[in-house]
Amino acid sequence: MRDNKQESANGIHFSIPDVIRKKRDGKELTEQEIQELVDRLVSTDSGHRAHDSQIGAFLMATFLNGLTNAETSALTRAMTFSGYTFQWPLEWKGTVADKHSTGGVGDKVSLVLAPALAACGLRVPMISGRGLDFTGGTLDKLEAIPGYTVLLSKEKMQAMLDTVGCCIVGQTEDIVPADKLIYALRDITATVEREELIVASIISKKAAEGLDSLILDVKTGRGAMMKELEQSRSLARKMVDVGKSFGMNVTALVTDMDTPLGNTIGNALEVAEAIQSLRNEGPEDLLTLTSYTGIVYLLQTLLTYVLTSI
Amino acid sequence: MRDNKQESANGIHFSIPDVIRKKRDGKELTEQEIQELVDRLVSTDSGHRAHDSQIGAFLMATFLNGLTNAETSALTRAMTFSGYTFQWPLEWKGTVADKHSTGGVGDKVSLVLAPALAACGLRVPMISGRGLDFTGGTLDKLEAIPGYTVLLSKEKMQAMLDTVGCCIVGQTEDIVPADKLIYALRDITATVEREELIVASIISKKAAEGLDSLILDVKTGRGAMMKELEQSRSLARKMVDVGKSFGMNVTALVTDMDTPLGNTIGNALEVAEAIQSLRNEGPEDLLTLTSYTGIVYLLQTLLTYVLTSI
Repeated sequence: MRDNKQESANGIHFSIPDVIRKKRDGKELTEQEIQELVDRLVSTDSGHRAHDSQIGAFLMATFLNGLTNAETSALTRAMTFSGYTFQWPLEWKGTVADKHSTGGVGDKVSLVLAPALAACGLRVPMISGRGLDFTGGTLDKLEAIPGYTVLLSKEKMQAMLDTVGCCIVGQTEDIVPADKLIYALRDITATVEREELIVASIISKKAAEGLDSLILDVKTGRGAMMKELEQSRSLARKMVDVGKSFGMNVTALVTDMDTPLGNTIGNALEVAEAIQSLRNEGPEDLLTLTSYTGIVYLLQTLLTYVLTSI
Repeated sequence: MRDNKQESANGIHFSIPDVIRKKRDGKELTEQEIQELVDRLVSTDSGHRAHDSQIGAFLMATFLNGLTNAETSALTRAMTFSGYTFQWPLEWKGTVADKHSTGGVGDKVSLVLAPALAACGLRVPMISGRGLDFTGGTLDKLEAIPGYTVLLSKEKMQAMLDTVGCCIVGQTEDIVPADKLIYALRDITATVEREELIVASIISKKAAEGLDSLILDVKTGRGAMMKELEQSRSLARKMVDVGKSFGMNVTALVTDMDTPLGNTIGNALEVAEAIQSLRNEGPEDLLTLTSYTGIVYLLQTLLTYVLTSI
C-alpha cells in the first residue's frame, strides 16, 4: 500500500495511489500532482509508467467526483504539453485560427470555413478527427476525394499554410499523446461523458496547434452528443475558460443539431455540398452558420490585432 | 464505445463497459453480470480478458458506490470458484475448521489455536498470509523456524490433516486467482479500504478451503485495520452473512487490538511465545483469546454435529 512512491523530477515524493485516493475522497489535486500523473501516463519507462488499472481508477474517481476549474486547466495543460506543440513563424502572429465542432449529423462547416478563412488571410492548421458514434468525421469525409491524404509532415503543413493558408489533417502520434491514451481508456471504462474530461480532450488538442484564435461550435439537440441546451452551454463556458488560460482568443457558439445540417449526409455527398457552398450555392442553414462563424472569427481576429497593436 | 460486447457462455450479450456504467450509476448488478466480470478478469484469452483499466474503473466505482449484500455474495462466490476448491473425504464431514484474523500486532493466535483444535480432533487446513502494512503475517512468523516450508502440495496437505490434524500453508497460484489479481490492483488503485471488497477477499479464500466451520477474529483498535468498533462490527456481520451463504458455520469475535497481543512482537519471538502457550505457560491475554476462540469452535462444531445427526 505504501509502494509506488517515487522521487519525482523536483525531488518531492510522489505516489500515484495517494493522488487517486485524494480524488476518490473529493479533494482538489495540485497542478503539480496532475502534471506528474500525466507524465507517468505517457512515460515509456515501464517502472515509472502508471499502471492501466490506476488510470482506470483515476478516470472513474474523476467521473464520479468531478474536477474543479483549476484542475481542469491543469489537466488540459499537462495533456497539451505531453507531446509536440506547434510554433509558427513570428510574422504569422495573430492570424493562426481554427474551429472545432463537438460533432453532429451532416456537419460539413469545417470543409467550407477553412478555405473561406484562408481566403481572408488567416492561417488554419486544422487537426481533425474521425467519425465518433453516429456523428461523421471531417477526415472520413475528405477521404471521399480520391488520392486525398490526411497525414502530413509538420514541414508540409507549414508549407501549405504559407501557400494555401489552410490544411485539414489527422493527428499524428506525437501530438497530445496523453489524450490519445486517456481517450482510448475512457472509451472502455465508461468514463466518456464527463464534462471536464471532454473539455481537456478538446482544448488540449487545439492548444497544441499553437492557435491565436479558436471558435468552438457546440452542438445541441437530438443529433448532438449533448442533448440538452443547458449541458451544451455549460460545456461551452468551460471550454472558453480553459482555452483562454492558454492565451488563445476563444469564442463558443451553441448551435442547433435537432435536424441535420444542410441537405446531405454521407461522406462524398457532404464534400460535394461543401464545394457548392464555397460557390455560394449551398443550403441556407449551412451558409448562414458558416458565415456567422466566419464573421465572429474575423471580428475576433481584428479585435486581437487592434488590441495587440496598441 | 459500443465495442467490447461479446457473446457470453449462455448466449447473452455481455459488455464490460455496460457493467462498469451500471455500477458507476449506482445500480445493482446481477449475479450473472458479476460472474461474467470475474470470468473475464482471470481469463487467459487476451481477447476475452478484461483490460486492467476496466478493473481499476470497476474497483473505484465499487469503492464509491458500494455493493449490496446480494452483490457481495455473488462477488465472493465468483471469486471462490475462479480456481481450485478443496473437497475433503466424506468421513471428515463436520470436522473441517479454520479461523481467520483481520490482523493485528503480536497476533500469534493461529500458531496456538491450529494445533490445539487438531488435538481436539478437528482438521484445520489453514491457508495463511504474509504481513500486511504494520501487521505481522503468520507465514512470515513460521519461516523463523529453520527449514519450515509454507508451500505444500494438495496431497501433502490432506496427508498432514489426516495424520497431524492441521497445517498452516501459503496460498498456491490456483486457489482463488481472482482474489490475487483483484488484491494486487486494489493495492495500487487506492481501493483497499472498502468493506464489501474486504469481505469478498477474506471469505472467498476461506470458502475455497472447503470448511464446515469458520471463526473470524475481527480486530478493532489502534493496532488494527479497523480503528473504530462500529466499523469492525459491521465488517464482522457482513463476513458472517456472506460466509453462511456458502453453508459454512461462521462466528465472528470482535477483539481488542489497542495494545499488542501477548508479550512479544517479531517473527521468532512470537513463535517461541506460541510454543510456551501450547505448554500453558504463555501470557494471559493470548491464552484467554485462544481458549475462548477454541471453545466457541468446539461448541459450534458440536452444535453442527448434533443438528446434522438428528
